[in-house]
Amino acid sequence: MAQIPKTQKAVIFETNGGKLEYKDIPVPKPKPNELLIHVKYSGVCHTDLHAWKGDWPLDTKLPLVGGHEGAGEVVAMGENVKNWQIGDLAGIKWLNGSCLSCEFCMQGGEANCAQADLSGYTHDGSFQQYATADAVQAAKIPKGTNLAEVAPILYVFTFLVGALAVQFAKAMGLRVVGIDGGEGKEAFAKELGVESFIDFTKNKDIVKAVKDATNGGPHGAVNVSVSEAAINQSCEYVRPLGTVVLVGLPAHSKVSTSVFDAVVKSISIRGSYVGNRKDTQEALDFFARGLVKCPIKIVGLSELPQVFKLMEEGKIMGRYVLDTSK
Amino acid sequence: MAQIPKTQKAVIFETNGGKLEYKDIPVPKPKPNELLIHVKYSGVCHTDLHAWKGDWPLDTKLPLVGGHEGAGEVVAMGENVKNWQIGDLAGIKWLNGSCLSCEFCMQGGEANCAQADLSGYTHDGSFQQYATADAVQAAKIPKGTNLAEVAPILYVFTFLVGALAVQFAKAMGLRVVGIDGGEGKEAFAKELGVESFIDFTKNKDIVKAVKDATNGGPHGAVNVSVSEAAINQSCEYVRPLGTVVLVGLPAHSKVSTSVFDAVVKSISIRGSYVGNRKDTQEALDFFARGLVKCPIKIVGLSELPQVFKLMEEGKIMGRYVLDTSK
Amino acid sequence: MAQIPKTQKAVIFETNGGKLEYKDIPVPKPKPNELLIHVKYSGVCHTDLHAWKGDWPLDTKLPLVGGHEGAGEVVAMGENVKNWQIGDLAGIKWLNGSCLSCEFCMQGGEANCAQADLSGYTHDGSFQQYATADAVQAAKIPKGTNLAEVAPILYVFTFLVGALAVQFAKAMGLRVVGIDGGEGKEAFAKELGVESFIDFTKNKDIVKAVKDATNGGPHGAVNVSVSEAAINQSCEYVRPLGTVVLVGLPAHSKVSTSVFDAVVKSISIRGSYVGNRKDTQEALDFFARGLVKCPIKIVGLSELPQVFKLMEEGKIMGRYVLDTSK
Amino acid sequence: MAQIPKTQKAVIFETNGGKLEYKDIPVPKPKPNELLIHVKYSGVCHTDLHAWKGDWPLDTKLPLVGGHEGAGEVVAMGENVKNWQIGDLAGIKWLNGSCLSCEFCMQGGEANCAQADLSGYTHDGSFQQYATADAVQAAKIPKGTNLAEVAPILYVFTFLVGALAVQFAKAMGLRVVGIDGGEGKEAFAKELGVESFIDFTKNKDIVKAVKDATNGGPHGAVNVSVSEAAINQSCEYVRPLGTVVLVGLPAHSKVSTSVFDAVVKSISIRGSYVGNRKDTQEALDFFARGLVKCPIKIVGLSELPQVFKLMEEGKIMGRYVLDTSK
Repeated sequence: MAQIPKTQKAVIFETNGGKLEYKDIPVPKPKPNELLIHVKYSGVCHTDLHAWKGDWPLDTKLPLVGGHEGAGEVVAMGENVKNWQIGDLAGIKWLNGSCLSCEFCMQGGEANCAQADLSGYTHDGSFQQYATADAVQAAKIPKGTNLAEVAPILYVFTFLVGALAVQFAKAMGLRVVGIDGGEGKEAFAKELGVESFIDFTKNKDIVKAVKDATNGGPHGAVNVSVSEAAINQSCEYVRPLGTVVLVGLPAHSKVSTSVFDAVVKSISIRGSYVGNRKDTQEALDFFARGLVKCPIKIVGLSELPQVFKLMEEGKIMGRYVLDTSK
Repeated sequence: MAQIPKTQKAVIFETNGGKLEYKDIPVPKPKPNELLIHVKYSGVCHTDLHAWKGDWPLDTKLPLVGGHEGAGEVVAMGENVKNWQIGDLAGIKWLNGSCLSCEFCMQGGEANCAQADLSGYTHDGSFQQYATADAVQAAKIPKGTNLAEVAPILYVFTFLVGALAVQFAKAMGLRVVGIDGGEGKEAFAKELGVESFIDFTKNKDIVKAVKDATNGGPHGAVNVSVSEAAINQSCEYVRPLGTVVLVGLPAHSKVSTSVFDAVVKSISIRGSYVGNRKDTQEALDFFARGLVKCPIKIVGLSELPQVFKLMEEGKIMGRYVLDTSK
Repeated sequence: MAQIPKTQKAVIFETNGGKLEYKDIPVPKPKPNELLIHVKYSGVCHTDLHAWKGDWPLDTKLPLVGGHEGAGEVVAMGENVKNWQIGDLAGIKWLNGSCLSCEFCMQGGEANCAQADLSGYTHDGSFQQYATADAVQAAKIPKGTNLAEVAPILYVFTFLVGALAVQFAKAMGLRVVGIDGGEGKEAFAKELGVESFIDFTKNKDIVKAVKDATNGGPHGAVNVSVSEAAINQSCEYVRPLGTVVLVGLPAHSKVSTSVFDAVVKSISIRGSYVGNRKDTQEALDFFARGLVKCPIKIVGLSELPQVFKLMEEGKIMGRYVLDTSK
Repeated sequence: MAQIPKTQKAVIFETNGGKLEYKDIPVPKPKPNELLIHVKYSGVCHTDLHAWKGDWPLDTKLPLVGGHEGAGEVVAMGENVKNWQIGDLAGIKWLNGSCLSCEFCMQGGEANCAQADLSGYTHDGSFQQYATADAVQAAKIPKGTNLAEVAPILYVFTFLVGALAVQFAKAMGLRVVGIDGGEGKEAFAKELGVESFIDFTKNKDIVKAVKDATNGGPHGAVNVSVSEAAINQSCEYVRPLGTVVLVGLPAHSKVSTSVFDAVVKSISIRGSYVGNRKDTQEALDFFARGLVKCPIKIVGLSELPQVFKLMEEGKIMGRYVLDTSK
């Protein structure tokens, strides 16, 4: 076991939207219930961008180390920790910790806990070499897992990028229609397993196109998009008795649909926040069995500002993963 | 058994919004799968008013005999009918018949059937002395039931009037907060069993008032109202992980809420159309056990136009029931 | 459209266990709610053997034409039939018809209807060239389907033969351990997609073997076997919070397990009778998409007695299907 | 706040079935995640008797302080505890603590955790004046609650005594048939709210009697009894599609029923172990609202041996509760 240093590299910012500094900061100490994880790789996602910019109606910690898709190795732990050993592989996810005893935690809705502690938002996250995480919420990663590839899986049930949504749906035996736009998206989608693809830049009537492709509308529609128009269309094209799932987190959009149609078609619209511990383990199990794979591109931690720039320009397909050693 | 006459009294109209004529028309003949029911009493509800006026984006049959809350006695039946005998008490409900073999019928969602036949809308209804109903969908009413009082129960899971919603909720062990406005509504609600009452004519911040009364928001909110503002408020005050149910059928309203909040609070918004056969039987069972009671006022069938007038003026508390013999 | 003959070939018996006669009998007439189906192929299963021998505590019709896995074409129909056209492909399944209006039918449990009419048991079945079936219960088979291969699928949720169970489970994303015994079974099972196979003729401690193969026991165990010992073992090896499903129909066996263990492990034991209309359509959809395939051997209808003989001797792997034209 | 003493009164035993000593022992120290609770009252139940005698196939801690229905006040807590304050009312229940991170804990099945720590079994329980409990599992009791009356509620979802089962069922809107035997039981049951009562000492055919009382069998049957015959009868009289729930924990009994009947009736048999945190809070909420009440008799802690004696003789109706100050 390597020794734990006193300082480490991290990307940190002092104010929302302020300078992203790649510099040395102290290594944190785990509380009695926490693990200290040597983060090897961290995914980057839109949530990190929103957190940095302060887009959402919930204050971030400041100064803040972002990141909530960290994969690494346990190097220390508090006295109260159960079920973990030094050397275990562990994942840092959006929900860093929760009270475990409120009405929401009691029913597996820990993300809804009023005391929810969020990695890279209210708790320093995975854009550093050593990070702390509540031992109950930290994800167990099987020995031998590719840490770079698994990193983005840790957040999969929130901003569920299209690519992963498709593969999870396929792995559960469902049939998938993909809706996206732009060069190369159709080929990418088909490769992942969608049965039919609708390009919103070419098709004028998305509602009709989806209904035609699914013989009357899909049983479920998962909105990873943050487009208000796309979300409202999904309420129209979903099949009677079907479910529209909202997972994207646009800062200001509304979902809006006809009450008459919602009643007569008996549809459901459900907000689905980040998965709980069980959901995360199932995602990791699917990954371990080779049923899902997230196309990644690895760059150094110091290059985070450039990744954020590409993300804002909408130029990313698949996921960027940061190597914390660079 | 009384003989079946050739003609009968009915209220019929030739065009949407046209004259409501109380006159003699022929008694219909049941098809092989139908019952002929001697309707004794029929409830009147907002749906009947909408059907007459042609408010909704679905054409009515014309000329039309309205009504979908009929209670009476079986006097004849087709050769293919099972489980019914002459003399049984039977109820005519909104869903008169469906194909029973499409994907929606197969999962108990008969109201979503594309061939759904609707009483008082696409099939002559209960504002006449003798009406036909598919034997599979017709409601079985226990011997000895008060037919005038049971009539409004037959529609209860659609436009579920406030009074009934409260009592069903109570009968299932739930705690109810009522929201309504105007003279006498609070006393009426308390009598039915609501634990707390919020008067929207007096309270400026309904969202806060409901959250305060329920220690953080109700687990579910049932919108029998057709007010857009009230529906949208319910999406705001519902508890995290809670469900907003839409049952009212406004012609043009939209439900609209923040995507960010819906996701982070993980709420569900569900359109709930008219109940299926099982729901109806459960409602009748609750009624038979004396757990729900609908305050009614009985008038003659010929007085339907006046009842519609009071309804449009918002002057009705409880339900009007028509006696078809007058 | 070919003309409907007056007589046809069938295999019929006068008494339980009596002579199986291959002879000419009249073509039946459909009732108002029934289809007349020209049966092209019929699967043969253990239920047919039990029905012929009268093994079960429920009387069969006598004389009886057995068979409940018939696939063919609609050649006539009663006046009350909806959603079908002459020339459509249709399947005859175990549940020929039910009342559709009792408490069980109302909740999708039509097989539990006290008036359930059973093909090849209380209603002449598919071991004839022309058979009748209630139009609501008859299965819709897509145009172009291979009728010989689809026949056994029609019963799949009852006596679910091992081969099909494995493939349905795989198609839904589950991981399967197979337990069986005898020459060639392991290779057969692996080919169908089981991840691990346990041969009960070679393994002395099945409970331990299954727990080892599943890291603590499977989440569910489906007993297609009629062996009392095998069923009771499944209650022991199932994972805590897991479910034991009973689908085989042994005439006299009991399921028996420790109350203490059942409570502390919080397991469920569920009897699962033949699927309803929705289950059947899903099975047919999986088949149509090529996700399940039942290895069949086609012989003539006249050879049914020999098939029963092989079945009693336990010499059948996969399914025999009868060609009614021979 | 009163000072915490060094020693306290407790009832302790050194060997299973050995002497129950009422004597002074040290007050335990809470771990970082634990509360120290000043127990005021503790219920006594059959589980305590089984634990003392060592009846079950799971070893108890030795020496052991029994008891798992303790109600008292928080007087100290570890540094890692969230959501609790000194002076809060707290309940000690069967599940004292669990790992919170295994597959069972992740799905709310903490009682199935392999590291489950059980009050009065593997962790010193509530038959002492000061006891420790994991802060996440300890039950929150509202201020002002009668601690003597609430004590038995804490275990209610396990050995659910008949009286409580009836009241919870009533509070949820269900209709209850009670089965019991002996003098005074019918009057007691009726007072609690059962609609019909069957005395097994007087009725020869329980299966028929229950079916007659419920028009074909109940939708669910909860076996608080440990009688093998009674449990097996419940599998026979339960309605098709119904559920038999096992909650009693007999040391050696088996549940045994016909596979054929279980399949054809599609029944479920479910073992239901002690409720999780959410179940406990719901039970406490029902109690706080006055919907359930457990008839209790209060005696001193020192009298525990006599209570065990009465319990073994089957002479207890309702519950004994110990006052730890005596």
